[in-house]
Amino acid sequence: MTGNTFGTLFRVTSFGESHGKAIGCIIDGCPSNLALSEADLQKELDRRRPGQSGVTTARKESDRVEILSGVFEGKTLGTPIALLIRNEDARSKDYDALKEVFRPGHADYAYLQKFGLVDHRGGGRSSGRETAARVAAGAVAKKLLALQGIRVIAFTRAVAGIEAQATDLAAIEANPVRCPDPAAAKRMEEAILAAKAAGDSLGGIVEIQVKGCPAGLGEPVFGKLDAELAKALMSLPAVKGVEVGAGFAATRLKGSENNDSYTASEDDQPVPATNRAGGVLGGISSGEEIIARIAVKPPSSIALPQKTVDHAGRETEIAIQGRHDPCLCPRVVPVAEAMAALVLVDALMMQKARQW
Amino acid sequence: MTGNTFGTLFRVTSFGESHGKAIGCIIDGCPSNLALSEADLQKELDRRRPGQSGVTTARKESDRVEILSGVFEGKTLGTPIALLIRNEDARSKDYDALKEVFRPGHADYAYLQKFGLVDHRGGGRSSGRETAARVAAGAVAKKLLALQGIRVIAFTRAVAGIEAQATDLAAIEANPVRCPDPAAAKRMEEAILAAKAAGDSLGGIVEIQVKGCPAGLGEPVFGKLDAELAKALMSLPAVKGVEVGAGFAATRLKGSENNDSYTASEDDQPVPATNRAGGVLGGISSGEEIIARIAVKPPSSIALPQKTVDHAGRETEIAIQGRHDPCLCPRVVPVAEAMAALVLVDALMMQKARQW
Amino acid sequence: MTGNTFGTLFRVTSFGESHGKAIGCIIDGCPSNLALSEADLQKELDRRRPGQSGVTTARKESDRVEILSGVFEGKTLGTPIALLIRNEDARSKDYDALKEVFRPGHADYAYLQKFGLVDHRGGGRSSGRETAARVAAGAVAKKLLALQGIRVIAFTRAVAGIEAQATDLAAIEANPVRCPDPAAAKRMEEAILAAKAAGDSLGGIVEIQVKGCPAGLGEPVFGKLDAELAKALMSLPAVKGVEVGAGFAATRLKGSENNDSYTASEDDQPVPATNRAGGVLGGISSGEEIIARIAVKPPSSIALPQKTVDHAGRETEIAIQGRHDPCLCPRVVPVAEAMAALVLVDALMMQKARQW
Amino acid sequence: MTGNTFGTLFRVTSFGESHGKAIGCIIDGCPSNLALSEADLQKELDRRRPGQSGVTTARKESDRVEILSGVFEGKTLGTPIALLIRNEDARSKDYDALKEVFRPGHADYAYLQKFGLVDHRGGGRSSGRETAARVAAGAVAKKLLALQGIRVIAFTRAVAGIEAQATDLAAIEANPVRCPDPAAAKRMEEAILAAKAAGDSLGGIVEIQVKGCPAGLGEPVFGKLDAELAKALMSLPAVKGVEVGAGFAATRLKGSENNDSYTASEDDQPVPATNRAGGVLGGISSGEEIIARIAVKPPSSIALPQKTVDHAGRETEIAIQGRHDPCLCPRVVPVAEAMAALVLVDALMMQKARQW
Repeated sequence: MTGNTFGTLFRVTSFGESHGKAIGCIIDGCPSNLALSEADLQKELDRRRPGQSGVTTARKESDRVEILSGVFEGKTLGTPIALLIRNEDARSKDYDALKEVFRPGHADYAYLQKFGLVDHRGGGRSSGRETAARVAAGAVAKKLLALQGIRVIAFTRAVAGIEAQATDLAAIEANPVRCPDPAAAKRMEEAILAAKAAGDSLGGIVEIQVKGCPAGLGEPVFGKLDAELAKALMSLPAVKGVEVGAGFAATRLKGSENNDSYTASEDDQPVPATNRAGGVLGGISSGEEIIARIAVKPPSSIALPQKTVDHAGRETEIAIQGRHDPCLCPRVVPVAEAMAALVLVDALMMQKARQW
Repeated sequence: MTGNTFGTLFRVTSFGESHGKAIGCIIDGCPSNLALSEADLQKELDRRRPGQSGVTTARKESDRVEILSGVFEGKTLGTPIALLIRNEDARSKDYDALKEVFRPGHADYAYLQKFGLVDHRGGGRSSGRETAARVAAGAVAKKLLALQGIRVIAFTRAVAGIEAQATDLAAIEANPVRCPDPAAAKRMEEAILAAKAAGDSLGGIVEIQVKGCPAGLGEPVFGKLDAELAKALMSLPAVKGVEVGAGFAATRLKGSENNDSYTASEDDQPVPATNRAGGVLGGISSGEEIIARIAVKPPSSIALPQKTVDHAGRETEIAIQGRHDPCLCPRVVPVAEAMAALVLVDALMMQKARQW
Repeated sequence: MTGNTFGTLFRVTSFGESHGKAIGCIIDGCPSNLALSEADLQKELDRRRPGQSGVTTARKESDRVEILSGVFEGKTLGTPIALLIRNEDARSKDYDALKEVFRPGHADYAYLQKFGLVDHRGGGRSSGRETAARVAAGAVAKKLLALQGIRVIAFTRAVAGIEAQATDLAAIEANPVRCPDPAAAKRMEEAILAAKAAGDSLGGIVEIQVKGCPAGLGEPVFGKLDAELAKALMSLPAVKGVEVGAGFAATRLKGSENNDSYTASEDDQPVPATNRAGGVLGGISSGEEIIARIAVKPPSSIALPQKTVDHAGRETEIAIQGRHDPCLCPRVVPVAEAMAALVLVDALMMQKARQW
Repeated sequence: MTGNTFGTLFRVTSFGESHGKAIGCIIDGCPSNLALSEADLQKELDRRRPGQSGVTTARKESDRVEILSGVFEGKTLGTPIALLIRNEDARSKDYDALKEVFRPGHADYAYLQKFGLVDHRGGGRSSGRETAARVAAGAVAKKLLALQGIRVIAFTRAVAGIEAQATDLAAIEANPVRCPDPAAAKRMEEAILAAKAAGDSLGGIVEIQVKGCPAGLGEPVFGKLDAELAKALMSLPAVKGVEVGAGFAATRLKGSENNDSYTASEDDQPVPATNRAGGVLGGISSGEEIIARIAVKPPSSIALPQKTVDHAGRETEIAIQGRHDPCLCPRVVPVAEAMAALVLVDALMMQKARQW
């Protein structure tokens, strides 16, 4: 329960309030001799950046990342990699009116109860802005995984009940919703724009797939691979649920329907006929594709008027103006990939540690 | 990702294979001067014990727990509390036929890939039997929470799609399914018995409620309360999904529908009109009831024949005889409570640590 | 600062009061497929056991260790290894007279202040008896290290100012003091027996040597190899100081005297002409022999009368009867080896984790 | 063994190479509502800064610290506090000649073996420069401790065998050696200047005293207060030994001489007549003054010629020019205070966490 540090061997420690001077993180435990540049990180940050399209917030942040340490002549040193992203487009004044009001769905009240004070500007530490640090760290994890043939891909599976029927991975980055089904993507986009126009917001489901993951990763009984993924993904702002493989649908199946029966491969290995387990058995990767899905709630910041209460206990009404995402899924996609990558690198390092 | 240790301040380290000499755990970090007896633990263990009713396995384990250390003259010393449960009814021979066969849905293959060898008897470490240690540790956590007015309750919300409509907490322990809706409980029981008779098994949903939890618990941004709950619950055998509050249903709501608007209480505090957040905002408890649900898959051990492969790569068919649970939910209930209690005690201790 | 758990990847969690039911530990993270039997552990425990010779306590404990889990058909499973040692010769009545008196040099007062209650019998958790669990865990670590060509050796370097001049490792186990200089050993033994006869006790210095350690172990800047060794060794009962290489003597040398200059080996590697660094540079093993020494205070339990105070604040005098070690060094030797072995295994696993 | 993170509840994660862009750290877990400004940190950093006097290096670093997050309107938010110190006076060219040579006493060789590459400029991560981040973090810890009446003081006890006889705490900051005995300070200063003139360097002993520490801190059996202090202090560059209370001198005392006998205070508490235990009993603070001493080796960078070997295995001779400390003690003083403060804050938080 170490608040702002994630991971056991590949450890990311994050910092920064939304409207403070900067956000960033320190990565400790990264193997040495990995080729790493700011461009490697920027590429992923640009996928999370605000202002990419009409379905994301219009807030402008270039989110330029600076590597402060741990890299020398283009290679990681094995020492801590500190990453810094200065905040730029912080219209803190936008938040003055909200300073003394508890925004429904937001963490204002909980933060105030926990800490006794709160940086109200843009949500402070509870802002989704902190996820930029996760994405930067995840970019390093992804490079390490790629060297071992492991690839993490996420996409928008559903928005407001509209589900992708096809899974064409090549289509994902070709539409603003990051949906692998172009037809569904179109309908999702329209729904998001309609909600935005109405001053409202939409939720959705993001799916994560891990390809090329070897069997054997995960640390039962508490550090199971799916348990660590669940923590990693549930720690994202707005995520209210996580499922692996058949997930909640498995609760309506019989054992005879849900079990993945085996056939033999040419080299005499067991091959599951289906993948309802989602690539994890007993908390350990089985060698099959790992599949997880997360429930992303509709953003809490909406322009429609909402009943609320101020710090003095007076009932009031607010309409949150400003620039907010009408649906978080498109920007959650790279963040979910980052968190899954962090878990996998850590699990891989744990497994390597025990090869005697 | 510390495999068999759970928690940061209230730490539980678990051990034991299903058919080895014993299972148990060490609890480290428990406050001193807590009244504690073996009876306190036994009471909870008896709720998890096999052989309670027709809807659970017929395996007989008295699961007698022995406190080896950390308690002196009826009080905790503040030193590690070691708990020991000897294994008794281990019919290891039942498993000889399965020794060289990968059971569909089970962890045999993944364990073998991870460790290079496996204790095949009864699932070894991957057996649900290890959860007895969680329950014993959770009983200590529950006693600590009770002293602070916090209560953790779980129950079967659904079995095979049959959902409890009422939530009468008093009804839970009065039926073998541990369902808070007596009418639904009856239908669930019938469904389970029918599946059992057919050599098959059923899945379901267990809901966890935490009452009396103060606002302010949880350690953002990675150790959010819901993230820790997700890890804790997903680490249970057979759990394939976790959701908090509205969970996956929130993905089909608009922001204006999903946000919990506030009214003012008599003492000028904000009171949410609804609880779609499930008692957690920004990863911190809000003071509302905490609500989580977990997806429990149908047990993998079924009597119906299944296609599979043996260690030599030969395709074969198995029908798992022996004594197995036709539906896990009734026995998962006390285990889920234990895990939630462990998370809450830890979160409470984290918060106390910072009071200056 | 996790009280009763030691290590990051090879984790030992210890439990047990001196006069409770049992002591023991759980080892989590041990690689699988290591040949391991109770005899492997017993061999080391017998070196720590009380009653070995005239210079140790006469308390009789057979210290039989039982492996409860984690080993199957003679091999480690990769799952937690639980070790149990039942307490036998607990003459708890001996301690009744001391129940309400603070014994000088002992931890009674500090424990009472920390926990509000204390198991007074034989020192409870603060007894040196807990080190048996360390030795058992260390025996597993030593087996792992041996497979990588690493050997940990400790011996009594000095007793009451009498210093070993020779370092004949073969001589260590041949005398009851475990001193590598037979002549000095004789004088040490006489000094210890004289102190014992006088109702007093003696301190001494134990030296630890690690042979065959590869360069590259240790985790700067906080987890330096010497820092972890210092913690490990200072956590032993009665240890009041730790030094590495030239240690405190280096404070009286000039840089030109203390630096280990290099010559080239036949295969062009730098070879230090001396080893004042003690095998650690910048907190990382250099490939040279690792050398550490610990200051072991004279045991606090002495028969001579001492002024003290009881729980009610009354001044009184006590003379601690019973069976106590007149000098701890001979029995600290295997314990110090165990702690050094635990550090090294952990450091080795950390290093393996990062090989990409 | 988490390399660059220190602490369990008050966690400091450090980064930065000596001649990279910056050094700094993130403090996670700091209680909220603590008044904190950059000036609070700067005051301590100025005590560690190079170029303070003739007995320290002439390197000029203003070491200006910037708070990037975690503080809002002068108060800590309870969120991570990121601290940044940009590197300025990095004459990296000075090190070009040393790029391919292993400097005796330095970590070059060990780092190269561990990581396969190394930032040779100014020692990279192994430079004492990283301790600035420790001092900044320690300044926060000291503020927290002060609010609880705990004060950490360090000073130079000895240089090259010249020992302080008096302990006048008011004298410490009045002389460049930071020695509490003005007469000894004068002799130490002369010795240091003479060594410097001769192109050589001197070692010494720094003593740490903790005043006002309540009884009850420390987490046996592995996280004992003295064990954590030993790790914290041994992790400092150039430290080769740590002792508590009588330390190594206790090995030459008898039990009857070393035990601290008790008398009763006016309020019936046991008061030790002496403090050979150094304020720690059984690894727990006893309420007495905590006393520790560390052995600081003479700096390895000396102008005198030394035999060594280059990366190609050729024997050569180097004379390290540039600006180096002739004795580290004066600058180690604030760093040792910082590390002790970090340990104490963590131990205090651990203890608070368990008050039920």
